[in-house]
Amino acid sequence: MFEGGEGAGKSTQARLLVEALAARGIEAVLTREPGGTPGAEAIRTLLLSTQGEGWGARAEALLFAAARADHVERLIRPALARGAWVICDRYIDSSRAYQGGGNGLSDADVLTLHRIGSEGLLPDCTILLEVDPQEAATRCALRDQGVTDRIGGRDPAYHARVGEAFAAFAAAEPERFARIPAEGSPQAVSARIMAALDRWLDHRAA
Amino acid sequence: MFEGGEGAGKSTQARLLVEALAARGIEAVLTREPGGTPGAEAIRTLLLSTQGEGWGARAEALLFAAARADHVERLIRPALARGAWVICDRYIDSSRAYQGGGNGLSDADVLTLHRIGSEGLLPDCTILLEVDPQEAATRCALRDQGVTDRIGGRDPAYHARVGEAFAAFAAAEPERFARIPAEGSPQAVSARIMAALDRWLDHRAA
Repeated sequence: MFEGGEGAGKSTQARLLVEALAARGIEAVLTREPGGTPGAEAIRTLLLSTQGEGWGARAEALLFAAARADHVERLIRPALARGAWVICDRYIDSSRAYQGGGNGLSDADVLTLHRIGSEGLLPDCTILLEVDPQEAATRCALRDQGVTDRIGGRDPAYHARVGEAFAAFAAAEPERFARIPAEGSPQAVSARIMAALDRWLDHRAA
Repeated sequence: MFEGGEGAGKSTQARLLVEALAARGIEAVLTREPGGTPGAEAIRTLLLSTQGEGWGARAEALLFAAARADHVERLIRPALARGAWVICDRYIDSSRAYQGGGNGLSDADVLTLHRIGSEGLLPDCTILLEVDPQEAATRCALRDQGVTDRIGGRDPAYHARVGEAFAAFAAAEPERFARIPAEGSPQAVSARIMAALDRWLDHRAA
């Protein structure tokens, strides 16, 4: 799974990883959250809509958990069951960072929603792309051309809390997380990710 | 709050109760679940859609909890705060009966979702309309004219489990529940409800 704040390059790196795995003969399914299945994409549309007064923190956390439940049941578990890898752009740690760290729900409650919704399924390896907040803001501005959604449009202090939350999760679970500096060209970052993945595979084989 | 299976007359009785309270000079807000607010009604549309392969039990429970969270935050709590009564057609006990009793989630998990989503807000009084399953089926067929949604279209064994679940909740919390036989004309049922409400108000005043 790829995690990190806005503008860290998650979508690009997830695509590059699937290509690199294919070159090794490994079937990898590329997907994203919120979304990945028709039901979850419909919930994503509700979540990212900027109409009306928006969702409260509690409704938002439940909607993310509902989208994930559909995604896990209909796409992720079937793919894992047939032996494929699943490469996902955002997963539970984004909910912990955004709905928990950024938005006032407790981490325990976010994890409880994940247990009830998805039987607590965790990734084998989580790649955390870490980027300087100023650099991330520049990348987002270039990408979005002034058009932003409900999440991306939140203030810098919110995004800073999110980044701190990700760093804390990685520190608490060093076996599951690979922290990757996201500075430099996409190719340079991809090379770092492949090196980290090889270390992780060697470690798991040992 | 009004609870009970399909075809028990909940919507009709909720409307009659609001009218009876208005005649006594009491402001009562009539609402329903899933729904009641623009956000919750959008979730309702997702929930009741019969397109695609439908929702799994876990995603469904999370969507109901998300709709309720929006409804409680944006409509129910503000109404209670200004001193109004809230008369709601279905609430948490429907989630317990349908997603819990009927659909395989534990009652504890459904109540946990309610705690996280809506701080566990419970009604002062829950009116359970109890109807013979055969009578309910006849009423539903008349009302729906063969057009049914994802919930109403489930099989009789599912609806029987739901009815048993409601009866068990009422037995476990006799102070909160008023069990009302739903046989007879709407006026006859309404008279039973008003008599039960007066007993409940007397009991609370004592």
